[in-house]
Amino acid sequence: MPLISLTTDFGDLYPAAMKAVILGINPDVRIVDITHSIRRAGIREGAFALYSLVRYFPQGTVHIGVVDPGVGTSRRALVVKAGSTGKKQFFVGPDNGLLIPAARRLGEMEVYEITNSELMLKSGVSATFHGRDIFAPVGTYLSKGIPIETVGPRISDFVDLDFGNFGIDGPFLIGEVIFADSFGNIITNIPEDTILKFSSFGSQVEVNGRRVPFVQTYAFVRQEESLILVGSHGFLEIAVNKGNASLQFGLKSGDQVVIRIM
Amino acid sequence: MPLISLTTDFGDLYPAAMKAVILGINPDVRIVDITHSIRRAGIREGAFALYSLVRYFPQGTVHIGVVDPGVGTSRRALVVKAGSTGKKQFFVGPDNGLLIPAARRLGEMEVYEITNSELMLKSGVSATFHGRDIFAPVGTYLSKGIPIETVGPRISDFVDLDFGNFGIDGPFLIGEVIFADSFGNIITNIPEDTILKFSSFGSQVEVNGRRVPFVQTYAFVRQEESLILVGSHGFLEIAVNKGNASLQFGLKSGDQVVIRIM
Amino acid sequence: MPLISLTTDFGDLYPAAMKAVILGINPDVRIVDITHSIRRAGIREGAFALYSLVRYFPQGTVHIGVVDPGVGTSRRALVVKAGSTGKKQFFVGPDNGLLIPAARRLGEMEVYEITNSELMLKSGVSATFHGRDIFAPVGTYLSKGIPIETVGPRISDFVDLDFGNFGIDGPFLIGEVIFADSFGNIITNIPEDTILKFSSFGSQVEVNGRRVPFVQTYAFVRQEESLILVGSHGFLEIAVNKGNASLQFGLKSGDQVVIRIM
Repeated sequence: MPLISLTTDFGDLYPAAMKAVILGINPDVRIVDITHSIRRAGIREGAFALYSLVRYFPQGTVHIGVVDPGVGTSRRALVVKAGSTGKKQFFVGPDNGLLIPAARRLGEMEVYEITNSELMLKSGVSATFHGRDIFAPVGTYLSKGIPIETVGPRISDFVDLDFGNFGIDGPFLIGEVIFADSFGNIITNIPEDTILKFSSFGSQVEVNGRRVPFVQTYAFVRQEESLILVGSHGFLEIAVNKGNASLQFGLKSGDQVVIRIM
Repeated sequence: MPLISLTTDFGDLYPAAMKAVILGINPDVRIVDITHSIRRAGIREGAFALYSLVRYFPQGTVHIGVVDPGVGTSRRALVVKAGSTGKKQFFVGPDNGLLIPAARRLGEMEVYEITNSELMLKSGVSATFHGRDIFAPVGTYLSKGIPIETVGPRISDFVDLDFGNFGIDGPFLIGEVIFADSFGNIITNIPEDTILKFSSFGSQVEVNGRRVPFVQTYAFVRQEESLILVGSHGFLEIAVNKGNASLQFGLKSGDQVVIRIM
Repeated sequence: MPLISLTTDFGDLYPAAMKAVILGINPDVRIVDITHSIRRAGIREGAFALYSLVRYFPQGTVHIGVVDPGVGTSRRALVVKAGSTGKKQFFVGPDNGLLIPAARRLGEMEVYEITNSELMLKSGVSATFHGRDIFAPVGTYLSKGIPIETVGPRISDFVDLDFGNFGIDGPFLIGEVIFADSFGNIITNIPEDTILKFSSFGSQVEVNGRRVPFVQTYAFVRQEESLILVGSHGFLEIAVNKGNASLQFGLKSGDQVVIRIM
């Protein structure tokens, strides 16, 4: 039974139109909502949501991502196939970088431009809702097993996106914020292995000048105390036990984070 | 595999009770949440949500709509069958107009009052939650193919609802707001063909005294600039590129909109 | 077709990781979101959400509950089997009381500690997200029919939880608030039969000193007027017709409620 995931900035109502189109074409497909609460036009946050979850989805999953401020302009529509043999997944969405970090995480990838209008909504394509009119039907046909070459030509000049630089510089570990989740936990772009090379559980560090412990889980500090940990996404996170780190530290997507050994 | 859609003002928790009842009766049915965030008792907004999406759902879909401020009083419970042969869909909910615009959009319709208590929840019917106790089980039995006459007698004096008047008056196009979506886009009751008869893409108009361009998509104006377009619902919409038109124009459901040719 | 329900305080994004894991193990299972909006670390509210819905789910349902402030500490992980023969349901989650009221409502129960690491996520168990790494896979294997003894040893010293005391004392009926729903309706711990023994529909009572009618449904009072009724959960509720009782009465989970006969 094939699986389709949805990642959008649509909020309410519009995801249901995509689901109606999907289930009209393939009633057997299962749909998982990753999120519809991405900040409006927040391509980087959407890319992270998809990136952080992709490895938990089974082989053959089709991920439809629609954070698409350029809808109706000349921006291209893409399908990406990624992963090694027997572990392939598909990504469908706009050519603005949204799909790339997740696809790249799976290994080798092939990128195709969607040009075949026979795979789009029969009743016509609006200028403002390609999620419903292009990405949903194309993704659903992929879930039914059409060859990827059917969608259009293979391309190599797609729009790229990464989560920025990070690195160790003497007593400093420098990175940036990718995402603040619905708890207010701040997820940085510093991977697990880098922070573990730099410091160890139980030690104290300074985060942008504030002293906090580096611990394994939230409950190792008192309520309302801040901490850093290796989060469930596999990145360094700044958190507050039962509190909101994003508010306490005043950090948002793209801001710099400087960790200093004490 | 049959499909059931849900449109309510229930927010959290209560939709799950309906889903438990539905899947207990028909484990094969697929459920699509249209929205559970309709403004409390917002019958007109709920009617529009259902109306705007109905044409994307496949034949045989059962739409359960519960925006029901009169629950537990003498208001009747309805099933509506609508659409031409081979394209029929069903609607289940209170007799307050909620279901009618969506059903009428599909063409000819038949309306039945739900009186058969054998189709209601076996453990009893509460005075405050007919979504769970009446509409969910009746809708699910319909998804399993019971004849519609089983629910109760056919009626013709149901409560009607429409989205108000609109029309061209010399240099003015007058209509009203049906809905503001979660982006703050203002959806009016002026259909695509009427606005295209009145003006054309690329021209300037005045909207309630403010000059805005009439364009094909959001990104044709600069960030935070307002515009009008033919929205994905097929109606004239007032929008702000990456902004909230509902706040900027101070318009809400039922307010008058006057478009003037420049 | 087996059913899994999810009750968490995760908000956005994290529930999708659980669903990806679940559908990767058992693509045939149906998933119902009870809620992901429990107040952070609100064990009592989460317990009530599960408790209030459990009787609407079919035999064999696996309920995964994750309101888990102690994640990553020494708190145990549990599976509970509850209900009489032919009506059994399963509960999976942390040993903090969250699962117990719902399980106990079904009748006799057996509690097991999860110790079998072969049933946990193959790629490893994080310190902060047991919902994804332990509860989702264990719950899914249960939905596939593994014997409950496979998860680990049976225990009897689990953490208990109840919804507090209530009772009639002369002209007073005393209880406490369990939950305020997304409408602002205040659900108390006073069961239907107790309030019906104490008063009757149509009479007036005082609720914490404010006079309100005891009626069958919201629309029996005017808009913005307060009332008490037997809610759809089977408990005494304090409500305001089309308004927010939680704000008007200033009551939240755990607060005392005193009803007085007039």
